[in-house]
Amino acid sequence: MSLPPSGREESLVRPHYDDVVRAAERLEGVAHRAPVHTSRTANERTRAELFFKCENFQRGGAFKFRGAYNAVAALSSEQRRRGIVTYSSGNHAQALAYAGKLQGVEATIIMPNDAPEMKVAATRGYGGHVQFYDRYSEDREEIGRRLAADRGLALIPPYDHPDVIAGQGTSARELIESVGQLDILIAPLGGGGLLAGSAIAAKHLSPSVKVIGVEPEAGNDGVQSFRKGEVVHIPPPKSIADGAIVTHLGYHNFPIIQDLVDDIVTVSDAQLIEAMRFFAERMKMVVEPTGCLGAAAALGNIYPVEGKRVGVILSGGNVDIARFCALLAA
Amino acid sequence: MSLPPSGREESLVRPHYDDVVRAAERLEGVAHRAPVHTSRTANERTRAELFFKCENFQRGGAFKFRGAYNAVAALSSEQRRRGIVTYSSGNHAQALAYAGKLQGVEATIIMPNDAPEMKVAATRGYGGHVQFYDRYSEDREEIGRRLAADRGLALIPPYDHPDVIAGQGTSARELIESVGQLDILIAPLGGGGLLAGSAIAAKHLSPSVKVIGVEPEAGNDGVQSFRKGEVVHIPPPKSIADGAIVTHLGYHNFPIIQDLVDDIVTVSDAQLIEAMRFFAERMKMVVEPTGCLGAAAALGNIYPVEGKRVGVILSGGNVDIARFCALLAA
Repeated sequence: MSLPPSGREESLVRPHYDDVVRAAERLEGVAHRAPVHTSRTANERTRAELFFKCENFQRGGAFKFRGAYNAVAALSSEQRRRGIVTYSSGNHAQALAYAGKLQGVEATIIMPNDAPEMKVAATRGYGGHVQFYDRYSEDREEIGRRLAADRGLALIPPYDHPDVIAGQGTSARELIESVGQLDILIAPLGGGGLLAGSAIAAKHLSPSVKVIGVEPEAGNDGVQSFRKGEVVHIPPPKSIADGAIVTHLGYHNFPIIQDLVDDIVTVSDAQLIEAMRFFAERMKMVVEPTGCLGAAAALGNIYPVEGKRVGVILSGGNVDIARFCALLAA
Repeated sequence: MSLPPSGREESLVRPHYDDVVRAAERLEGVAHRAPVHTSRTANERTRAELFFKCENFQRGGAFKFRGAYNAVAALSSEQRRRGIVTYSSGNHAQALAYAGKLQGVEATIIMPNDAPEMKVAATRGYGGHVQFYDRYSEDREEIGRRLAADRGLALIPPYDHPDVIAGQGTSARELIESVGQLDILIAPLGGGGLLAGSAIAAKHLSPSVKVIGVEPEAGNDGVQSFRKGEVVHIPPPKSIADGAIVTHLGYHNFPIIQDLVDDIVTVSDAQLIEAMRFFAERMKMVVEPTGCLGAAAALGNIYPVEGKRVGVILSGGNVDIARFCALLAA
């Protein structure tokens, strides 16, 4: 069992399937029931039956809205009055600002100064107060904790939080409700909010499913942690999957991943671009690089799927179109 | 009443709502029930309630599959044995090749030699025999009729055919079945297959709806024909809306459009690009320029929609990604 840094043990609450159900109730009529798309071409290529859960069509353009909204909805009225704070490399920033706006809660967002312009603009567009930090020299978690303590704000980190994990689990729950039992469920892995939540939902609803996390090759802290049995920290990685370039898994997330996830694999940036091209050309969708992690593993046969019914979570579509085109032209 | 060129009167059969229903039965389980997407941002900008029928997610990447499949399904077994032929600037080519493949009918496709590479490749990918012609010097209809006569092939033109029109009407039917009564239905206008079929379905299911066609500014033969009360021919127009650059409306299509369509408006290429950008950035979808015609009119306030419930048919998503990116960079 991995332990969080000293002084944080008290906060280790493990979410269960009931919490995913409660999150789904809170999200009813607020989050989109993101559609499931299929592709004969993808099925022919992989000789599998792939079900893509399209969180790129979610409110705010990514699954992150689910966890953020659920976490804000779970706050006390006193906490809501004081406001919320988070740090995020992108989609959680927008999602929390949006969730705050919808629920009348003021949100401060600590963003890296190299965050995609579109994500900064969208965060501000939802009324979030953006505060920048340097990814390579500053500790965003420290900044977040300090702001929370100084101003009495509720800290809702992007993944290391039980209500965030439970909210993210609602996507896999909807997917299995829609398409039935799965042999494999593949989800992107950054800090582990989506993967942990997906695993909780999937193992409950489809007990024989194998749950697979996919992270960028350059940031394989998840694989390292999974093998070592504890949260491994790595230097800030560089990958086009800007939503998954975390330095370590969440402490709430890791025990769930260790218990319920069957394997973690990695994909290269080139494989992400191939998947992104496939979605644009064949499925007429814009999926951001991070959103392609799971699909790249399935389409590139990184994790074997032949003959299986496979759920693949496409986590988001928030990519500057200029960057999208530059990546596809490379 | 406009008359077709001498010798073609006998073929003027007008499809009715019953034909759309029969087409829907043939397409059941074969065509996708293309999803309807909405956008809070689009609604805020237009102060309307917009329902986008996403035929870019249709089989073959465009609504054309509906009409092509229906027309092939309506052939006699003798006609199927001999094969089919068509001419097309793109999506109908793929659609007919695909419909032929699915129903075991050999398809010959006459395509312009400047057709998008992706559309040629896709047509061949579906097993279609491609024969090129020059859009600016040759008459594709003449080539098609000659091939049909010489080889005993059934000619299924891209729009000027009652079974094609009836098939295209199934999209508007599904849209209204999904979202209920509409105040306005906006559809792209090239040769008039989609618009005529949409008008037949929409006026039956939502009698007070106003049906609006949208064509490229550079190829406004539809507006001219609508005003003049007869099919007006224009020189081959140049527009990025490669699926709508026809020289004249279909002779089966025009009387239906004249009777049931309420107005025809035009949009510029720049307006198409703005709509294409909106779909990519905000709705995470790839919509080809022709597919943006209806949306450009609504989003650009070319046809007033404020306060209305508006159906907008996005007709397709088949655009080379390199071209898509070049258009958005311009």
